[in-house]
Amino acid sequence: MSEDIRSRIRNKELWNKIVSAEEAAAIIKPGMNVAVSGFTMSGYPKAVPMALAERMKKDPFKINLWSGASVGKELDGILAEVNGIAKRMPYQTDKNVRNRINGGDIQYSDIHLSHMAQMVRYGFMGGKADVAIIEVCAITEEGNLIPTTSAGNAATWVQNADVVIVEVNTTQPAALEGMHDIYMPLDPPDRQPIPLVHADDRIGTTYIPCGLDKIKYIVQCDIGDSLRHLADVDENSKAMSGYMIDFLKQEIKQGRMPKNLLPLQSGVGSVANAAIAGLVDSDFEDLVVYTEVIQDGMFDLIDAGKLKFASGTALTPSPEGLQRFYKGLKEYKPKIILRPQEIANSPEIARRIGVIAMNTAIEFDIYGHVNSTHIMGSKMMNGIGGSGDFARNAFLTFFFTNSVAKNGTISSIVPMCSHFDHTEHDVDVFITEQGLADVRGLCPKERAKVIIENCAHPDYKPMLLDYYERAVKKTGNAHSPHLLDEALSWHTRFLEKGTMKI
Amino acid sequence: MSEDIRSRIRNKELWNKIVSAEEAAAIIKPGMNVAVSGFTMSGYPKAVPMALAERMKKDPFKINLWSGASVGKELDGILAEVNGIAKRMPYQTDKNVRNRINGGDIQYSDIHLSHMAQMVRYGFMGGKADVAIIEVCAITEEGNLIPTTSAGNAATWVQNADVVIVEVNTTQPAALEGMHDIYMPLDPPDRQPIPLVHADDRIGTTYIPCGLDKIKYIVQCDIGDSLRHLADVDENSKAMSGYMIDFLKQEIKQGRMPKNLLPLQSGVGSVANAAIAGLVDSDFEDLVVYTEVIQDGMFDLIDAGKLKFASGTALTPSPEGLQRFYKGLKEYKPKIILRPQEIANSPEIARRIGVIAMNTAIEFDIYGHVNSTHIMGSKMMNGIGGSGDFARNAFLTFFFTNSVAKNGTISSIVPMCSHFDHTEHDVDVFITEQGLADVRGLCPKERAKVIIENCAHPDYKPMLLDYYERAVKKTGNAHSPHLLDEALSWHTRFLEKGTMKI
Repeated sequence: MSEDIRSRIRNKELWNKIVSAEEAAAIIKPGMNVAVSGFTMSGYPKAVPMALAERMKKDPFKINLWSGASVGKELDGILAEVNGIAKRMPYQTDKNVRNRINGGDIQYSDIHLSHMAQMVRYGFMGGKADVAIIEVCAITEEGNLIPTTSAGNAATWVQNADVVIVEVNTTQPAALEGMHDIYMPLDPPDRQPIPLVHADDRIGTTYIPCGLDKIKYIVQCDIGDSLRHLADVDENSKAMSGYMIDFLKQEIKQGRMPKNLLPLQSGVGSVANAAIAGLVDSDFEDLVVYTEVIQDGMFDLIDAGKLKFASGTALTPSPEGLQRFYKGLKEYKPKIILRPQEIANSPEIARRIGVIAMNTAIEFDIYGHVNSTHIMGSKMMNGIGGSGDFARNAFLTFFFTNSVAKNGTISSIVPMCSHFDHTEHDVDVFITEQGLADVRGLCPKERAKVIIENCAHPDYKPMLLDYYERAVKKTGNAHSPHLLDEALSWHTRFLEKGTMKI
Repeated sequence: MSEDIRSRIRNKELWNKIVSAEEAAAIIKPGMNVAVSGFTMSGYPKAVPMALAERMKKDPFKINLWSGASVGKELDGILAEVNGIAKRMPYQTDKNVRNRINGGDIQYSDIHLSHMAQMVRYGFMGGKADVAIIEVCAITEEGNLIPTTSAGNAATWVQNADVVIVEVNTTQPAALEGMHDIYMPLDPPDRQPIPLVHADDRIGTTYIPCGLDKIKYIVQCDIGDSLRHLADVDENSKAMSGYMIDFLKQEIKQGRMPKNLLPLQSGVGSVANAAIAGLVDSDFEDLVVYTEVIQDGMFDLIDAGKLKFASGTALTPSPEGLQRFYKGLKEYKPKIILRPQEIANSPEIARRIGVIAMNTAIEFDIYGHVNSTHIMGSKMMNGIGGSGDFARNAFLTFFFTNSVAKNGTISSIVPMCSHFDHTEHDVDVFITEQGLADVRGLCPKERAKVIIENCAHPDYKPMLLDYYERAVKKTGNAHSPHLLDEALSWHTRFLEKGTMKI
């Protein structure tokens, strides 16, 4: 037991709750609902889950795992490896978990990220959290918890759980304290308006309310988050970012948008990061971010003096980005707030402050529906994440994708999606490396024309037009013309022949 | 010009703006955006549209028609008959309009009802409203407008339009004054929290702000709304209402719901009306309604002493219900508020107060996706209406449908929907006359089992199970097992052979 962990536990009474990861993990019983901190590769517990996985290796059993969003390999990865997860909610990106989901071993509920905490509080998810495991950088005198680099659902888990295990991560600086703003709404019929009107408003506490008694065990952890490298910004991403910036400039010119835009939300990953990164070279100023995940691109914007403020629920830089953040902590900290995902992804807030939502699609169809989750209709990729929280309620909703995948054998623009996560009612603008389709106010047939013309890859454009024109003819020019016996034939062709091409 | 209309125009200066419907209609030019009051068969202008249609008969041209929701035959019906509508938003239920939409004559944008007003204010819908035509029961001394039986988008249309034509409907009592609560949010970046925390909160004015100068013409109208008779509550509807009530009782017992439930929302039409009507014979008390449309069933609940308060955007009784309302106006009025649809359908409010959402599906699939709008994938029926505003943000989301349609030739539960309006992420409970499927927290395969078992018609249950089991096998037990070459075969079979049965 190092000196370091004690220095982060400000109430000496708590010191006698410090135990080994194994001892803490022993409290977890088969079938329990285990609720963890963490949102993306950020702020999730590691030591206790690793001890739990070791135990499962010897004595196989399963738990239900509730998180903020995806979490790292030291939690999702190893528990899936030992087949230790029965039910998983609300999001994942781990390849072991994905394989278990698509093989029937894990029952996965793919849930809007803003919905998860309240659905547990409402009692809709099969009981309470039996155990919460929360990563912190410090514990206050009163037994309240200072999170590390994510807020996620941790505050609700602490409130909801019978037992709280705290992992003090000594690789994270205690100086993270002050970055968080923890606000938990009451539930209906007592809920009040969320009193947030600007991205930089503080409405809660800098800690997760917990208290001395609720803390069962404290475990030291000296393993850092398994951060991922971001792909280099490629030509396609640059092109998409360029279309978006030109579009936004035009919106400002038309008087439809303030000069400094409106708060930006961008999905997780390389394409979204590239879209944000593209703003560095733009002449936009005083930008504001209201999003889930703060990535490297936002540090670039802060350094370039273009970003006034970033609100999110997690800080998920690349490994280099994290070092850069630590080094510039003093400068970055006053410009960043981390909130519970229920607030970061709140439809109420997204609509009020007028978020510009930028998310990535797996595929979209000619009438403007979006598949964000499934490969060829049946297999889960990651999940809907927060895209639905934002897309539906944003001021402007963008979806990005490369026009083709798998060396051109898959067209990301198809006659009909093979799975639906966002409907025609929810998207304003589609962008691929081919171009941009602004579908605001258009009917389905008008949408089809502009989506095919502006977004489809040249290899697939004639095929899409052919489908569309025959569908119009066969249905007598119906509202959303489809040939139902052909609508999914592009996907079945790919499954049979390895290409959507004829 | 009768005496009556002048008595309702409290500022004598306005009397010289009284003109014939023909004179007022003459201001409307080809291609104009004409924005009208009205939400369902309630509170829409009639005299000016009828004069406009007459003009179009002689001299054909088209306008774009923006409303609150569907409107009656004296507006939608006759304008569609003369092919006078180019673009139509955001909802309709008229057979002439539907035929024009499905024949390519009308470009129809099917939009979430809470989104319409702000999208026009944002400038996303192709310019401003050129002319607003608003039905009122009176005009105040200051030139402000007292709506009749709906609020809809009228306030935004008045604010947005260059020219306002007011139709004073003398069939509606001036005593409707005081029933409305008109609140219009500012737009981002200036929007504030909507200060409503209970269904009976008043946050706005009893009139639509307009002013003397903005009123261009005033027209008398003595035609009542073309109200529709509600279908008798049939056995199927009674069964569905019964399942819902038993479920809600169980929720209360489990401590997941207050004894007087939470604010109820129900879609428009006979099934939804029946669900509400079923509550009359229940032992629930102190109920509250927060919905779009107040129908006859809610008067029954008020009369039975079970409903404390009803908030909506329109009062749409049957013809008999309207007479009953007039007769009991003094008693009903303090228990009803009509709000702009942007507030009645607000996601912010639905989530805050914890609405119980009850809406009707055309079909749903074994994994829990819902089609609310399209017949066999291509043809528009009505539109999404407010179902998406509520379903996504409710405390609990129900979807109802009869398990079969067209004498049993159509199964409303299908392997895959032929169109998607609400996704698997958004529904908690499915109900048919066969039973109820509670899918909260379930993964797709768990959902499939309970939906097929509890909701499907016995004629189709073996076929659905067969599809599901073969899909599980073929996809190796993937997350959402589908046979893409068969997923829509039930629909194509119906289109070819007139039945989904093999």
